[in-house]
Amino acid sequence: MNLLLNEIRRNPLLWLLVFVPVVLVVEHLEAGTPTLLFVLSILAIVPLAALLSHATESVATKTGDAVGGLLNATLGNLTELVIALAALRAGEYMLVKASIAGAIVTNTLFMLGASFLLGGLRHHTQEFNSASARLQAGQLFLATIALLLPSAVGAADSARTSAFTEKLSVYLAIVLIATYGLGLLFTLRTHREFFGAAESHREGDAAPWPISLALGTLGGVTVLVALVSEVFVASVQDAALALGMSKAFVGFIVVALVGGAAEMASAFSGARKNRLDLSVGIALGSATQIALFVAPVLVLASYTVGPQPMTLQFWPGAVLMVLLATVTAALVSNGGRSAWFVGVLVLAVYLTFAVTLYLLPPRVP
Amino acid sequence: MNLLLNEIRRNPLLWLLVFVPVVLVVEHLEAGTPTLLFVLSILAIVPLAALLSHATESVATKTGDAVGGLLNATLGNLTELVIALAALRAGEYMLVKASIAGAIVTNTLFMLGASFLLGGLRHHTQEFNSASARLQAGQLFLATIALLLPSAVGAADSARTSAFTEKLSVYLAIVLIATYGLGLLFTLRTHREFFGAAESHREGDAAPWPISLALGTLGGVTVLVALVSEVFVASVQDAALALGMSKAFVGFIVVALVGGAAEMASAFSGARKNRLDLSVGIALGSATQIALFVAPVLVLASYTVGPQPMTLQFWPGAVLMVLLATVTAALVSNGGRSAWFVGVLVLAVYLTFAVTLYLLPPRVP
Amino acid sequence: MNLLLNEIRRNPLLWLLVFVPVVLVVEHLEAGTPTLLFVLSILAIVPLAALLSHATESVATKTGDAVGGLLNATLGNLTELVIALAALRAGEYMLVKASIAGAIVTNTLFMLGASFLLGGLRHHTQEFNSASARLQAGQLFLATIALLLPSAVGAADSARTSAFTEKLSVYLAIVLIATYGLGLLFTLRTHREFFGAAESHREGDAAPWPISLALGTLGGVTVLVALVSEVFVASVQDAALALGMSKAFVGFIVVALVGGAAEMASAFSGARKNRLDLSVGIALGSATQIALFVAPVLVLASYTVGPQPMTLQFWPGAVLMVLLATVTAALVSNGGRSAWFVGVLVLAVYLTFAVTLYLLPPRVP
Repeated sequence: MNLLLNEIRRNPLLWLLVFVPVVLVVEHLEAGTPTLLFVLSILAIVPLAALLSHATESVATKTGDAVGGLLNATLGNLTELVIALAALRAGEYMLVKASIAGAIVTNTLFMLGASFLLGGLRHHTQEFNSASARLQAGQLFLATIALLLPSAVGAADSARTSAFTEKLSVYLAIVLIATYGLGLLFTLRTHREFFGAAESHREGDAAPWPISLALGTLGGVTVLVALVSEVFVASVQDAALALGMSKAFVGFIVVALVGGAAEMASAFSGARKNRLDLSVGIALGSATQIALFVAPVLVLASYTVGPQPMTLQFWPGAVLMVLLATVTAALVSNGGRSAWFVGVLVLAVYLTFAVTLYLLPPRVP
Repeated sequence: MNLLLNEIRRNPLLWLLVFVPVVLVVEHLEAGTPTLLFVLSILAIVPLAALLSHATESVATKTGDAVGGLLNATLGNLTELVIALAALRAGEYMLVKASIAGAIVTNTLFMLGASFLLGGLRHHTQEFNSASARLQAGQLFLATIALLLPSAVGAADSARTSAFTEKLSVYLAIVLIATYGLGLLFTLRTHREFFGAAESHREGDAAPWPISLALGTLGGVTVLVALVSEVFVASVQDAALALGMSKAFVGFIVVALVGGAAEMASAFSGARKNRLDLSVGIALGSATQIALFVAPVLVLASYTVGPQPMTLQFWPGAVLMVLLATVTAALVSNGGRSAWFVGVLVLAVYLTFAVTLYLLPPRVP
Repeated sequence: MNLLLNEIRRNPLLWLLVFVPVVLVVEHLEAGTPTLLFVLSILAIVPLAALLSHATESVATKTGDAVGGLLNATLGNLTELVIALAALRAGEYMLVKASIAGAIVTNTLFMLGASFLLGGLRHHTQEFNSASARLQAGQLFLATIALLLPSAVGAADSARTSAFTEKLSVYLAIVLIATYGLGLLFTLRTHREFFGAAESHREGDAAPWPISLALGTLGGVTVLVALVSEVFVASVQDAALALGMSKAFVGFIVVALVGGAAEMASAFSGARKNRLDLSVGIALGSATQIALFVAPVLVLASYTVGPQPMTLQFWPGAVLMVLLATVTAALVSNGGRSAWFVGVLVLAVYLTFAVTLYLLPPRVP
């Protein structure tokens, strides 16, 4: 417990934990406007995500390489998963999909681009493991195809029944999860010598916790994230309206930045320490995980959790952005070398997306 | 003749030749259901394709490098061409187009991916000639553009007359064939030193036949393929219905796998012998040939053979799949290095296509 | 003045200057058909563009590296800018957009492809600075995204108001110009050592003029280009009709070839002298400049010059061609090596575009 308090004292991000009880109390008393609840829940999720991330890695460190790698790979985006499950239960499918697409785009563009820029401002040029980056770009491309097909085929012929899209989404989800699993086997077991640097990435952050504290934190914080997520999901629609933001912008940009704040902190600090391998590994690895694991898990989970099945058929604009983000990441990570302007280019692509989504007029229902 | 019998005894695939007389007799007696004829004709085409392939290469070996290369390059996909001509004569344009797109996709994804996987299961990592792969990816990309333009421009403005699409298709076909010819000049003559390994690829398979046997086989088997193809084309529609497969699935997946069975056997055996150059050369070379030679020849042939001109305007979903297959091939063949998981990734892309086509509800006419 | 006359005597392209007074007189006397005026104005613009280009570089050489680089970067496509401004003032928005997209496509495909081909016919293989090419391909890709987004989002939902597209275009224009400026900072200042060869490219052409002659020419010729451009824009629509060319073809192909004639001469001569770095630098550099500087400047200028705001929403076919041209350029320039067939491939892509645009039936208004 002392360790936990130490961690909190050391890391200013965790001071935001004070907003966890605040948001829950305000919500219970029905004392806040949706906008207040929305802002409070965002402020509460950021430190919880950081704690979750630290706890997962502590468990991973203690359980050895293979199990640890698996844990990191499945729980690394637990926050995003819990938020999305809350939205799924509430039937907010558009928010779920926007947050999936947004997390992929934000990780591949904002996290990667800002790492390149921050690293490049301190170091003239930087090198990173391009084999690892290329593999993750390949997996992202597969996931993009799986998002493209239901949308494209659906759009090409409006007479297709939704039964087709639902069945197709389930099969595609299974293909994605299976590929993700085989990818873990590849990077953690059969060809681990190629991916060394990227795997050991988060060690630099802090000392690992003892297993009991880590497991306890993992469980307790997950419950808290779930509680706060429900407030967040319930308030987001009215808050977006009140703040003049489109729902697409909130799901795509705000949720993705909130959910990924802790990982961004690690990625950026790696880039400034000239360990760009870490940054690229976190950014593309996280995007891959969401695309090949979190998204298909949500599709399958929707059959037991949600009011109706969720498909992989996304809004065409979101599919286009995921596609462009994947191609951009593949182009810039291909050479294994970076300088500050590469970061500017990637961030500029992200900025065009953000501006487009921000200006998007709300859909007439 | 003894050589031919020897070959048949040696190669179990050729035992399927027994189905050639069977299918022709059953068809003549009008004794079979469409489904039976469909299955029998598939079983008959596989060994005929293998014989054709062997005969072509024997002629090629005997006639010297330049003429031989040209022969291989024009007759290498004779089976696909004969089947497509039969479908063209029957006015089955959708089947022709599906089989063209399917052959491109199957060669670039299934043949390439399975080669990577089979090779990778036996060898830790494998290298191949990336200059050759990149050139073929470039040619495939050009062909993809030629398929995209009529569909995209047609879709962008429904007021365009079909006269525009027909004229455009003829010009594009000429551009493709001319580029293909110049590509042969490049790889077989002016810059052959860069493409050595890929050209000598099929020698490992078996001893070449004497020229008279080879030419006789070439002629006789082509006639047989033509006869069986007609049964196949006539039965495919009813059979697909009876088997619960969409016509798109049959054209895209089944025809492509049947027509390419012999080449796949060569490609896979090359990969297992750590001669991945062969496998990549066969897979991408065959796809290039279909895209830049077979498809435009069919467009031009439709003016004398078919009931009406065939265009290069494809179903948008097919164009999308060809585009994605080309980009996937370009991405994975860029580095010139492979391991088993690269094969898994490529096969997973193919699987998503196959699942999509299989589930596709039949179009209401 | 003697220097100017010398230059004219030396360079046969400049003999076309005689058409400048001819076109202005014919137009003033209202003596010509639109087709005659169209042809005369094209013949007059070609030498003026060459003079402008020479004058810009002379000023650039005299003012030192940083200012000179900036001048070259902003005035390098002055001809295209002046023509587009004339079209903008006349409210010919479709012509403006076609000429922007056409200049990008013509530079990346025709200028690059013909350089590869001409260089390759004389030299077996050629090398060039791929770092520089990759950076410019990245910038082009960003610009392509900025063209894609308004079109795609507009197309995805026809209920979007045009107010959205206008506002979005202004923001995207600002992002593009800012990125272009940072790119200049990168190549001319912080990382100039990587881009040496490409920057010094035009020195080989001729001796620079004294600053007074250069500045005078710059001013005087700009006025002449503006005058002739107005004749050109006024005659183009009727002339295209009379010549049986679609307006899209004229804007895309003819204007782009006319405006870029001078730069093409430099690029081709560089390729034949085995200085492919120059050629690739001119071709991709010019395309980047139009995409990230000229196009957004026109959007912003339309608020003061044109009868109504111009957006970045292009005809979907044009966006597709820009996208395909960018991807083609990225693919072929990635390796930093070229041979004649690479040029053929790139030119074949350009040819498919030209044929498509030429055959395109005129739109029913």
